[in-house]
Amino acid sequence: MTRAPSPPASAQRVTSLDVSREAGVSQSAVSRAFTPGASIRPETRRRVLEAAQRLGYQPNAIARSLVTQRSGIVALIVGELHNPFYPQALSKFAQALEARGKRALLLTHDARRDVQETLDAARSYQIEAAIVFPTRLTATPPTLGHVQGGGVPVLLFNRHLPGHQLLSVACDNHAGGRLAAQVLLDAGARRPAFIGGDPDTSTHQDRLRGFTERLAEAGLRPVAAPSRAFQYDWGVQATLHLDATGTRPDAFFGANDIVAIGVLDALRTLGRRVPEEVSVIGFDNIDESARLAYRLTTIGQPLDAMIEDALRALEDPQPVDGPRLHAPELIWRDTVAGTGP
Amino acid sequence: MTRAPSPPASAQRVTSLDVSREAGVSQSAVSRAFTPGASIRPETRRRVLEAAQRLGYQPNAIARSLVTQRSGIVALIVGELHNPFYPQALSKFAQALEARGKRALLLTHDARRDVQETLDAARSYQIEAAIVFPTRLTATPPTLGHVQGGGVPVLLFNRHLPGHQLLSVACDNHAGGRLAAQVLLDAGARRPAFIGGDPDTSTHQDRLRGFTERLAEAGLRPVAAPSRAFQYDWGVQATLHLDATGTRPDAFFGANDIVAIGVLDALRTLGRRVPEEVSVIGFDNIDESARLAYRLTTIGQPLDAMIEDALRALEDPQPVDGPRLHAPELIWRDTVAGTGP
Repeated sequence: MTRAPSPPASAQRVTSLDVSREAGVSQSAVSRAFTPGASIRPETRRRVLEAAQRLGYQPNAIARSLVTQRSGIVALIVGELHNPFYPQALSKFAQALEARGKRALLLTHDARRDVQETLDAARSYQIEAAIVFPTRLTATPPTLGHVQGGGVPVLLFNRHLPGHQLLSVACDNHAGGRLAAQVLLDAGARRPAFIGGDPDTSTHQDRLRGFTERLAEAGLRPVAAPSRAFQYDWGVQATLHLDATGTRPDAFFGANDIVAIGVLDALRTLGRRVPEEVSVIGFDNIDESARLAYRLTTIGQPLDAMIEDALRALEDPQPVDGPRLHAPELIWRDTVAGTGP
Repeated sequence: MTRAPSPPASAQRVTSLDVSREAGVSQSAVSRAFTPGASIRPETRRRVLEAAQRLGYQPNAIARSLVTQRSGIVALIVGELHNPFYPQALSKFAQALEARGKRALLLTHDARRDVQETLDAARSYQIEAAIVFPTRLTATPPTLGHVQGGGVPVLLFNRHLPGHQLLSVACDNHAGGRLAAQVLLDAGARRPAFIGGDPDTSTHQDRLRGFTERLAEAGLRPVAAPSRAFQYDWGVQATLHLDATGTRPDAFFGANDIVAIGVLDALRTLGRRVPEEVSVIGFDNIDESARLAYRLTTIGQPLDAMIEDALRALEDPQPVDGPRLHAPELIWRDTVAGTGP
């Protein structure tokens, strides 16, 4: 007997009960039809799937998660998004999670509040794991540890908290800082400056440390290292201020690409020629750094490899002995003197 | 009697049963303590909250959603994220949802697949609503309508499907196209070109239609209107190609800012001076358009107002009679000749 479709009232969700009535089977059979590997006769499964299609029924992943304790949801907790590097990482994470049959719950984090509040909110959605994007170092490491103890693995992306046993995947920012110094030294720089980002972040600190260390090996030190924010306006302002106070570096290392792009625009305003008079190098390799107006030489982060590694680390958490570091890569373009490596 | 805290085994989630034991109350009392407006004695609530705090218990938003049918989860379905306008909109949406006590479930959509697949996946998470960011017009309007009928309101953001009764919030792209033409006409343009985006999108089509219509009123038409993609590289390539084939527009309207920025970089390569010889105007007002290297004059979208309107529309869906349009705004900078309005 063929029954006419009987769609439910438009404001109601279709339930497994509706499907069981439509297919003339038990509710348990509907559940088994949608559970991979469950025991069910092929004919029964076919009837259930056809009824489900007629009614527009979708099995409830959330209800299932209460039984299996596997919601498939991974929280992405993001701070400020001024830096285009993070939206880019975010969309790549969402795609990588989907390729694994999981979903991203997006939570934004206000740097003025405790990151624990955001993690608590995320936990109430039965998340399987949480990935925290850079916020300030001051954000409550002990409570981060507590959340991890609560059974939800937490991973810091592109950031680490020295002295704390948390999963962390990052670019080797210290090596990147050394590499930036090496590139500027090879270009003949003798008076290099560092234009920093937010001084409370490990990315800023590690890049500065690597840069200073490599310069010291060559008997040099930065002629200036002002720091404030990972923002374009700050790159412009810091460069104009140095010039106005008589400091004329022959090379700049911007703590990230948008800071370095600000440096380039300020140098253009000052009439200083890049790279003939001044060399500039950035960090991240965001899309904008490749624009013809900039062609910024920069230290690239291996983003795809970092994301894969982060997801592997969360699937099989091992005892933590420091951040999992990925080697940065020189992206040679037009803003450093010479012919490159 | 004060009981010592009894934390659960580290790999286990704390449940309401743990809290009820710790507090010496019923599980039902624990549930009522976390339900706004539920009947419970203040003393009992206090004991529950203290026990919950000792154990690190978080009430389960997902389990509660099965009872209340209000998960608090809104799906954000995004297509390609090359255009920085969308990551920016995404993070503002996440913040606006959080201000309403809701959360964003992020799903990426592959333009080669049916958007219905992505919506079905989203529905299985008990979403309250779905917001679809621009993908191609060809994406299955009938099934979009079907999803809406299934009880989950769907809203198209910055896009509409002519002839379909779906909620839609957009910038008035037609008016924006007219405004761009007006600005270039006021600057004295006689041979304006349009560098289009993806021709299958309503944003491309509406902007082009408004632009062409206003030019026609002045007795002009675009000297060229190639279209392909809302991408920087396309803006560069289209401009170089026009020049190579002998078409020398005296003004360009880029279908969005990254296309217009590509036009600017190509004109710089060709040695043509902006705005003395050629005027350029874009659309969106992304952060990058304000960089000193570009200072792009553009048509700004009122993003905050559009997001607020989208969330209001989803909270109280009304019969649909066309897209909810927001007036664009001229952002006057340095790439159009003259002194501006």
